[in-house]
Amino acid sequence: MIIRSLITNDNPFNSTDEIRKWIKQRNEEVKVSVEQIPFSEMKKWHSNPDGSLHHDSGKFFSIVGIDVKTDYGNNNHWRQPIINQAEVGYLGILTKVIDGVLYCLMQAKIEPGNVNCVQISPTLQATKSNYSRVHSGKSPDYLEYFVNVKPENIILDQLQSEQGARFLRKRNRNIIIKVDEDVPLLPDFRWMTLGQIKELIHEDNMVNMDTRTVLSGLKISDYVTPLDGLNGMSELGRGLILSSSTNHNYTAIRGHLSWLTSLKSKYDLVVTPCAVNDMPGWKKTDTEIVREDGKYFKIIGVNVSISNREVSEWCQPLVQPMQQGICALIIKKIDGVYHFLMQAKLECGNFDVMELAPTVQCLTDKVSVIEAPDFYDYVVNARKDQILFDTLQSEEGGRFYHEQNRNLIVMADENFPLELPPRYTWMTLRQIYEFLRFNNYLNIQARSLISALNYK
Amino acid sequence: MIIRSLITNDNPFNSTDEIRKWIKQRNEEVKVSVEQIPFSEMKKWHSNPDGSLHHDSGKFFSIVGIDVKTDYGNNNHWRQPIINQAEVGYLGILTKVIDGVLYCLMQAKIEPGNVNCVQISPTLQATKSNYSRVHSGKSPDYLEYFVNVKPENIILDQLQSEQGARFLRKRNRNIIIKVDEDVPLLPDFRWMTLGQIKELIHEDNMVNMDTRTVLSGLKISDYVTPLDGLNGMSELGRGLILSSSTNHNYTAIRGHLSWLTSLKSKYDLVVTPCAVNDMPGWKKTDTEIVREDGKYFKIIGVNVSISNREVSEWCQPLVQPMQQGICALIIKKIDGVYHFLMQAKLECGNFDVMELAPTVQCLTDKVSVIEAPDFYDYVVNARKDQILFDTLQSEEGGRFYHEQNRNLIVMADENFPLELPPRYTWMTLRQIYEFLRFNNYLNIQARSLISALNYK
Repeated sequence: MIIRSLITNDNPFNSTDEIRKWIKQRNEEVKVSVEQIPFSEMKKWHSNPDGSLHHDSGKFFSIVGIDVKTDYGNNNHWRQPIINQAEVGYLGILTKVIDGVLYCLMQAKIEPGNVNCVQISPTLQATKSNYSRVHSGKSPDYLEYFVNVKPENIILDQLQSEQGARFLRKRNRNIIIKVDEDVPLLPDFRWMTLGQIKELIHEDNMVNMDTRTVLSGLKISDYVTPLDGLNGMSELGRGLILSSSTNHNYTAIRGHLSWLTSLKSKYDLVVTPCAVNDMPGWKKTDTEIVREDGKYFKIIGVNVSISNREVSEWCQPLVQPMQQGICALIIKKIDGVYHFLMQAKLECGNFDVMELAPTVQCLTDKVSVIEAPDFYDYVVNARKDQILFDTLQSEEGGRFYHEQNRNLIVMADENFPLELPPRYTWMTLRQIYEFLRFNNYLNIQARSLISALNYK
Repeated sequence: MIIRSLITNDNPFNSTDEIRKWIKQRNEEVKVSVEQIPFSEMKKWHSNPDGSLHHDSGKFFSIVGIDVKTDYGNNNHWRQPIINQAEVGYLGILTKVIDGVLYCLMQAKIEPGNVNCVQISPTLQATKSNYSRVHSGKSPDYLEYFVNVKPENIILDQLQSEQGARFLRKRNRNIIIKVDEDVPLLPDFRWMTLGQIKELIHEDNMVNMDTRTVLSGLKISDYVTPLDGLNGMSELGRGLILSSSTNHNYTAIRGHLSWLTSLKSKYDLVVTPCAVNDMPGWKKTDTEIVREDGKYFKIIGVNVSISNREVSEWCQPLVQPMQQGICALIIKKIDGVYHFLMQAKLECGNFDVMELAPTVQCLTDKVSVIEAPDFYDYVVNARKDQILFDTLQSEEGGRFYHEQNRNLIVMADENFPLELPPRYTWMTLRQIYEFLRFNNYLNIQARSLISALNYK
C-alpha cells in the first residue's frame, strides 16, 4: 500500500491541484505580520547578563554563544550564536490505508519565518514544551494518536538531527504511524498520497522541512510486494528500488563505517559555552546579534501576529540568513546501480562530530570569494538533461526567517570520475538507509534531498 | 581463521600457562609506586581558579565539574566531577594469520591504577596526545601499522564509549587490523589466540578493559566458514553462533530502534559545565575532591614511579571508587535461541543520552540502603549451575585507582518471565552486534560482558 501510495497521484479526496489551491487559499486567508522589534521588547523573553536570550519559562529554546575549536577546515577557532533546544520534539505523520492505498494526514501550517506563510507540514509538529503545555495552550491536534500508538502500528521512528551550523545538538523524533480507526478530519488537514507529496516537493517552498525529514526515512524498497510490483514506476523509480536493495555485501557497509570512524577520530571538535557579549567578529545591538562583516546569519527579535479564525500574537527570536545556500547531490550509475556521492561533513552543532552530507553543501555567495568546494562547479554547470530536481526549499519557519536553499539532484555523466577525495564516498541507496535508521548519520540537508527522490 | 583462533588454546608460541607465568613474572619484575600527593604538588598539573585540574600542556585529560539535569530516575539535579578527555584515542589489536589461525599481538602493560600492575592489553593503547607526542616521549610501539593500514586489512573499526558516569562523552577508536608481513616481537608483547584470551578473561583482573572492549566488537558468526565449521565448539558456543545469526526479521530490529527512540525522547539530559568549587555535596581539599557523605568516588592526585628496565615517573589525578559495583547479564533461551536481557540506561556522560547496558549495573553497597534495581536479587542469588561467568574485572588503570567490578553472566531458568519492565528488552546476539557496529549504542559494561562469551 506504500508503493501504491507512491505511484498514486489521483486522490479521490482531493486532487493535487485542489491541494495547491487549498494551500494558496490558506495563504490568502491568513494575515501574518512579522515585525522586527528590539530584544528588550520581546514579551516573555529576556536577555541574561552574558547577552544570551531566554524564554521566561526556561523552556522552548534559547540563543546562546559557543566557542568552537576544531582541526577541520581552514577556520580552527571561532565563536558564534547558536540555537540551544535540548528538548526532543515530535515530527509525526499519521497515516491510514484506504482502499489499499496509504494516505498521509497533512497539515496546512503557518510558520512565521516562511517566505510564504503556509506550507504542507506533518500531522504533528510539537516541541516537548508544546505538548507538555508550558504555555497555556491546548494540547496539539492528533497528539494522542502518537502518544498511545501500539508498537505494531509504528512504520518509522527515528531520532534525527537538525542544521548543525545553527542548532546545538538538536534532534527530533521522526515518526510515522498507521491507524486503523476512523480519524476526524480537522479544518487545517487533508489526506494526501505519498505520490502527491513527492509531486509537491518538486515545487518551490511548498512542502516544509519537517515533512521532508520524516519522509526521507521511509525505505521504499521494504514495501515492494509481489502484489504491487513495480508497475507504474518510472525507469528512474525502478533504478532507485534496485539501488535501495543493493548492499553489495557486508564488507561494503563495514568499509563505510571504518571510513567514518577514521574521519571522526581524525578531527577534534570541542564546543564550550561562551558569552554572547564576548564573541569576536560579532556584536549585539538592541535589535540584532550580527557579524561585523555581515556574513552568515544574524539573530533578530520579532513580534508575530497571525489573524485567521482567531488572532494570536507572540514574540520570539529568529535566525535570518545573510547568504544563500545550495545543497546538491550527485548520482551515478556504477555497474548498473545508482550510487550517491556523499561527503562526511563537520558542523559545530553536530551531535556526533561528522554527519553524511550531500555532495555539495555551501553558501553560494561565499563561493565567489574563496575556493569553491569540490564538485561545486560540476553541479552548477550541469546540463538541463542531467538535472533531476532543482527547487528552492525552506528551512524550518519556526526558527529561521526567510531561509531558503537551492536543492539540486544531478545525474553524473559517464565521464564522471569514480575516484573521490578522502572525505567523499559512493553509497547505494540501501547503504544510505542503513545509516539513516540509526541516529545522527545523515544530516538534514542530505535527508531533504533523499525525500525528493521520485519513483513515479 | 578467526573461528580456529577462538577454539585454539594450544599455541605453539606460548601456552596459556606460559602467558600466566609471563604476566606474573612481569608483575614481580616491575616496581610500581603510586603515592597520593597534594594536588599542588602534581608536577605539570595545575588547578584553575574554579577548582578544575588540568595538564599544563592543555592536552591529555582534565577533571572538571558538571551540572546535570535530567527527568530520569530519582535524583534529577546534581553536580559532580568528571574526566574530560575530548580526544579520540586508539585501542588497537594487531593480528596475523599463522598456519591458518589468527593470532593477536598482546601487550603486558603496566597501568598505575590496576590492583595488580600488569594486565594483558591491546597492541596499541594511545591517546592522540601520546601519538602526536605532546610529551616528549617516543612514538608508541606498532603505531605505524595502524596509521598506514590498508582498508582491506581492517577487521573492525568502531568508535566506542567509555564509562558514562565518569567520562564526559569520551570515545575511543576500537580497531583490529591484520598484517601479512613479518612483525618484530618486542619484549613486552606475545602472540595469543582468541581462545587463550577468552580463557584468561575468565580470571580476575587478568585482561584489561581496553582488550575487552576491542574484542567485544568481533561478530564471531561472520567468520564461520564451511571449512572451519562449528567443530571444537561447546554446545554453548554453537548456541551463541545461532543467536548471532538470528535477526528474527527486520521488524524486530525496527522495534528495538523505536523502543530506544521513544526512551531517548522521553528523558531529557542537560549537562553544563560548573565550577568544581561550586558542587553541593562535594568538597575539594588539598588532596582530594570527595563527597561529604563518602559515596560514589573521589578524585585524588598521585605521583607514579615505575622502575623496570628504565625508570619513569609522573604525576596525574586518578578516580578512586568509594563503592563496589556489579555488572550482570541474564541470558535466556527463547524458542531455541539465546536472548540477552538488555536495559536502556541513562548516564550523565553518555554521548547519546541512553545506551544499552547489562541487565544489572549498579553499585553494590548502595543496594542495601535503597531499593535494589530490577533483577538484582535474581543475579546475586543465582544457583551455581546457572552461572556462566563470574570474575572481577578492572576498569581502565590509567584513570581509575583500584577499581574492579564483579562481572556475572547468568543463564535464566525456565520460569524466568518473558515480560519485562519498560526500560528492558530481549535481544539476540545478532541484534546486539547490529547496534554495536554503529557507534554509542552498547555501553562499556555491556561490551565487557559480551567479550567474555566463550565458544570453546
